[in-house]
Amino acid sequence: MLAIYFDGEAAIEEQPRPEPGDGEVLVRVSMAGICGTDLQVLKGYHDFKGIMGHEFVGEVAGPEASPWLGQRVVGEINIGCGNCDLCRRGLARHCRQRRVLGLKDHDGAFAQYLTLPAANLHVVPPGVPDEMAVFTEPLAAALRVEETTSVMPDARVLVVGDGCLGLLTTWVLALTGAEVHLAGHHPEHLELARLRGVASYLTDELPAGDYDIVVEASGSPSGLELALARVRPLGAVVLKSTYVGRFPLDPAALVVPEVRLLGSRCGPFPAALRLLQDGLVDPKPLIDRTFPLSQGPEALAWTQRPGVLKVLLDCQK
Amino acid sequence: MLAIYFDGEAAIEEQPRPEPGDGEVLVRVSMAGICGTDLQVLKGYHDFKGIMGHEFVGEVAGPEASPWLGQRVVGEINIGCGNCDLCRRGLARHCRQRRVLGLKDHDGAFAQYLTLPAANLHVVPPGVPDEMAVFTEPLAAALRVEETTSVMPDARVLVVGDGCLGLLTTWVLALTGAEVHLAGHHPEHLELARLRGVASYLTDELPAGDYDIVVEASGSPSGLELALARVRPLGAVVLKSTYVGRFPLDPAALVVPEVRLLGSRCGPFPAALRLLQDGLVDPKPLIDRTFPLSQGPEALAWTQRPGVLKVLLDCQK
Repeated sequence: MLAIYFDGEAAIEEQPRPEPGDGEVLVRVSMAGICGTDLQVLKGYHDFKGIMGHEFVGEVAGPEASPWLGQRVVGEINIGCGNCDLCRRGLARHCRQRRVLGLKDHDGAFAQYLTLPAANLHVVPPGVPDEMAVFTEPLAAALRVEETTSVMPDARVLVVGDGCLGLLTTWVLALTGAEVHLAGHHPEHLELARLRGVASYLTDELPAGDYDIVVEASGSPSGLELALARVRPLGAVVLKSTYVGRFPLDPAALVVPEVRLLGSRCGPFPAALRLLQDGLVDPKPLIDRTFPLSQGPEALAWTQRPGVLKVLLDCQK
Repeated sequence: MLAIYFDGEAAIEEQPRPEPGDGEVLVRVSMAGICGTDLQVLKGYHDFKGIMGHEFVGEVAGPEASPWLGQRVVGEINIGCGNCDLCRRGLARHCRQRRVLGLKDHDGAFAQYLTLPAANLHVVPPGVPDEMAVFTEPLAAALRVEETTSVMPDARVLVVGDGCLGLLTTWVLALTGAEVHLAGHHPEHLELARLRGVASYLTDELPAGDYDIVVEASGSPSGLELALARVRPLGAVVLKSTYVGRFPLDPAALVVPEVRLLGSRCGPFPAALRLLQDGLVDPKPLIDRTFPLSQGPEALAWTQRPGVLKVLLDCQK
């Protein structure tokens, strides 16, 4: 099968079709999405080596006896060991020995086929087309903000960063009735947020005032600095993105105003699928371009152009 | 009256007895405690200028018409404006225009008399002697940890730092039934914790393993580093102490394991008084020495000796 294999460099090449192990299924990948973390893999994130990609939608193609056969599915990316204290507490997403689809010790979704434990799968409702379902993983990550800290209708929320995750987060939070502001650097992205009733601003033009909750989704030290400067006493800063390097944190900026700095990563797939099914979030305006899998390296290069939001791969072409 | 006045240097001097303003009472201070934050004032914290001190117990001495007259009291240290959005939400402790007893725009407790709004006062139960009641403020700060994050009986908790706040925090948390470990540098302080069933270790000898909750009460960058290294995925680090300078924070250390970094400061006085009244926490072993107020500068110097826990001032001498 065709796959984008990373080994210091991302190349499109023929790879053996994977064999599902115990409890696993084989998925024929229809469509995959390229995410900022994939670009970090290109820079050496986790020292990953293998088939890249973790955002996908596909159809279960094996084993023959699986009750999942023929189902259209999306899949959670963390694969726990099933036996440790965290897995036994239902926290498999954080298993210390976990493998992660296309990111750590498990081949990923930029391929014609992938394998995953059946326990990771979620059926895609019939009314949700592939180009929407492929956003389930990032949309779940956006919803994780609401699991990380409660967002009430009278909350004032600032999202920092107008990339895919930032925009999805503003849309999801706006549904709660909260007053949502977005700060970013790309006027055309800020316009997308505005269409959903979010007030969006170039970062330099953000009005004065503080926020109950600030979501840092820019992946830059200046974003975290803005977040800490704008959160109110007893407020929460939700950290959604990582970056290489360290941020000089002043502990007094947390202790004196009793601010909470909350790491937040993968989120609930069922909630994301429900938003897509009910049409409450439409991620299609985020799609910049769709490439055939065979042009994977070109697609990765395209994703790195300034201002590009989501690039998809048609994995059977 | 006698008072320790700071103006670049701490000096014992005659100061006019303060006049209670609207809603305020005059308190004749019986006893005051010297805290780490007072030592920071000596280094220029908040550019404070005035009478120092914020931990006290005393007796209401005016105005004549006050229903509080003659009551033995302790007092909360934050004085909100009463009108802003935070005060109106009941968050006066975090009022942006707040004054703070002996720390910001309000004269403090290292004096024969102080003034405070009556709203800040709490009556000391008759069975609690002055040398215990004077610990109400730091004990409340220790209890704030339990308000900051829930501590269940099956939690594994590490407290970093074996100063007064660290020890009070271990004792308070041990009451919950949780397994509490203390890491510090002073064998004689670690011994005090052990008396209450806490397992305490020299920092270098802390056994392997991670913790559901880590409380950083050492006030040092290495303490925060240890806390982040030892908290489990989805766990909480409670930051109790500030220090001058910045800590190089790796955002991935919060985002990937979804760790919460929680600023925590002043706590609930009624809960602290109840622990003292019921004898569930006895802070007296923390007392290193009691000085008369007239020897205030000597007391401040004594407090800075390595390994000294709590130094008290007898404010009518």
